[in-house]
Amino acid sequence: MNVPEQQVYLDNNATTRPAPECVAAMAACLQGDWGNPSSKHGRGQRAKQRVLEARGQVARLLGAQPAEIVFTGGATEANHAAMLGAVRLDPQRRHIVASAVEHPSTLLLLRHLEAQGRAAVTLLPVDRLGRLDLADLERAVTPGTALVSLMWANNETGVLFPIEQAAALARARGALFHTDAVQATGKVVIDLARVPVDLLSLSGHKLHGPQGIGALFVRKGLRWPPLLFGHQERGRRGGTENVPAIGGLGVASALAAQWLGDGGAAGVEAMRDHLEQGILARLPCATVNGGGAERVANTANIRFAGLDAEAILDKLDRAGIYASAGSACAAGGSEPSHVLSAMGLDRSGAAASIRFSLSRYTTRADIDRVLEVLPAVVKVAGAVAA
Amino acid sequence: MNVPEQQVYLDNNATTRPAPECVAAMAACLQGDWGNPSSKHGRGQRAKQRVLEARGQVARLLGAQPAEIVFTGGATEANHAAMLGAVRLDPQRRHIVASAVEHPSTLLLLRHLEAQGRAAVTLLPVDRLGRLDLADLERAVTPGTALVSLMWANNETGVLFPIEQAAALARARGALFHTDAVQATGKVVIDLARVPVDLLSLSGHKLHGPQGIGALFVRKGLRWPPLLFGHQERGRRGGTENVPAIGGLGVASALAAQWLGDGGAAGVEAMRDHLEQGILARLPCATVNGGGAERVANTANIRFAGLDAEAILDKLDRAGIYASAGSACAAGGSEPSHVLSAMGLDRSGAAASIRFSLSRYTTRADIDRVLEVLPAVVKVAGAVAA
Repeated sequence: MNVPEQQVYLDNNATTRPAPECVAAMAACLQGDWGNPSSKHGRGQRAKQRVLEARGQVARLLGAQPAEIVFTGGATEANHAAMLGAVRLDPQRRHIVASAVEHPSTLLLLRHLEAQGRAAVTLLPVDRLGRLDLADLERAVTPGTALVSLMWANNETGVLFPIEQAAALARARGALFHTDAVQATGKVVIDLARVPVDLLSLSGHKLHGPQGIGALFVRKGLRWPPLLFGHQERGRRGGTENVPAIGGLGVASALAAQWLGDGGAAGVEAMRDHLEQGILARLPCATVNGGGAERVANTANIRFAGLDAEAILDKLDRAGIYASAGSACAAGGSEPSHVLSAMGLDRSGAAASIRFSLSRYTTRADIDRVLEVLPAVVKVAGAVAA
Repeated sequence: MNVPEQQVYLDNNATTRPAPECVAAMAACLQGDWGNPSSKHGRGQRAKQRVLEARGQVARLLGAQPAEIVFTGGATEANHAAMLGAVRLDPQRRHIVASAVEHPSTLLLLRHLEAQGRAAVTLLPVDRLGRLDLADLERAVTPGTALVSLMWANNETGVLFPIEQAAALARARGALFHTDAVQATGKVVIDLARVPVDLLSLSGHKLHGPQGIGALFVRKGLRWPPLLFGHQERGRRGGTENVPAIGGLGVASALAAQWLGDGGAAGVEAMRDHLEQGILARLPCATVNGGGAERVANTANIRFAGLDAEAILDKLDRAGIYASAGSACAAGGSEPSHVLSAMGLDRSGAAASIRFSLSRYTTRADIDRVLEVLPAVVKVAGAVAA
């Protein structure tokens, strides 16, 4: 396979490059502190210390307490633990409210729970900009609602949901509130000391940490039934702790907290806006999906009217520019994006859309390279389509 | 914390040192091939290639086909997927047969399923040497049995169960057969082309691979319901693939297969026997738990009659010798080992037992160091106890 010399990676909502500091922490665990934290001997205790430190680092990123962090094998597991736990807590409450634009794995699980008769599910719509209407949420929550689960930031469009108000609304109605914050963690300031979220999922590999590790924040006082049994994580998640990945996630969390504190998001937002404005100025067929909504700083989802995103992506790929159509998490890719469909786009509109997702490692030169290559690629695609 | 200069690690059933080749493969993923395998661009496809290669390596270690390997976040998840899947397959079959000496996380899950009314569970006893009686199994399996689940090798004693015969018996009765092979994989030859196991769990970190990765073998033709939904692993396990850990597990599997092929287990067995014989010769209070049974080559579980294992372990720890009482997987450690209890040991007998578990990195010098240090430690403990 030919690897183009200059690579521009703008698919950070699919996965991010692990920070060098994170890789170094993992190497230190793999080569030195590879013990089992449950072992009482010196080697086990050193591994336990790594986990302890990382728990504090993740908690600090969220404004949470260390005891509220449960490490999981990823965000999909954390999301499953939240939903499956919710329907087990109280037989009188088996209703789950979510949105139509949740992550595909969440929607699959909810459909399964409904098919099995274990839950009734209400999926809230979004408007043309991908926004949630809190009045819809208010109508949907009933005394039988066990859980409201809403993404903090959408993975395809970056559109932010009003989590603080939604969580307060759920709490006022006696329902638990979970947020899939995979695409928000490390990108926007999250302060769970203030926002009344009960459960929050995050993923290591979306914030320059390792793959295969995530966390579920479980609010203090909430007795949460485990998805995986075992004595680890205070009985809330069984299985030997993944020490190197936990250590890596800890370091990634500390780096993200520092970057957010230093106002790093503004720099990414400026580059994202430069990209969007540059594309719109050069290509009249382009529109920003969700462009008028509040969005996380790193995501640009652009529709190239009448064109085929896959054909454009293929040409970008050959030029070493990596972006995506829809999300990497949708199977196969033959189905139109459920997120864009929920926003009212028809099949061809969804199939004409490309997601560019930046990170703190993205440079102005990366963006300029896209602005140099993309117009020609789009014009060729347009000529073929015409 | 003072780290003794010469360290002897004999707690390999808790976790193993990742092989340097495995660490190198992980570093290559973390620094280069860190893409999301679901991404269609070059970076994603290179990550996908890593997963493909590892799948073949794990399959070869088991005598399986690559499509039969489902990567999981660890063996606990794989075990859960096996049990929870089994009770979902057929509403007419809700009975699970296991043994009293299964892993604590498995027993916790089974107790939970029984408490919820989702399964009826029969736990088979073992004899004084930790052995299973196939006649007991034969009596336990009924037309309502969904699954028979038995460890291949016990984590505390190393005692091997007759998996080939047990699997054949289950199959003859129309029940599925699962084996928790965490402590057998990479230690004994496993050939699933020959042994009629339907489901098998393994763990990366018990065979010099990374923590946080495992696999569930699912026999071809068996449609297995996922524990975590998502399109990955052909819909059998959702969540972005943990590429570095999968790559590391692949390399660890290839190394284990080669080591087994080269007859490496005989060398470990000789060292284990040297350790046991050396201890028995020096300390009349010592007995080998499960000593007369067929055992995996690396495990010695020794009872020091009348003594307190924790006190001995503490002194060994200070001398840089790392072993364990019971398993690292039992919570807290205040409860006597359920494995040794099932073998008929009373509380004091179980509390007097120490597990030494070797690996292919163990040296003769390690064993000699234990034989040099242990007698004095035991005599001091004996004097205190007396």
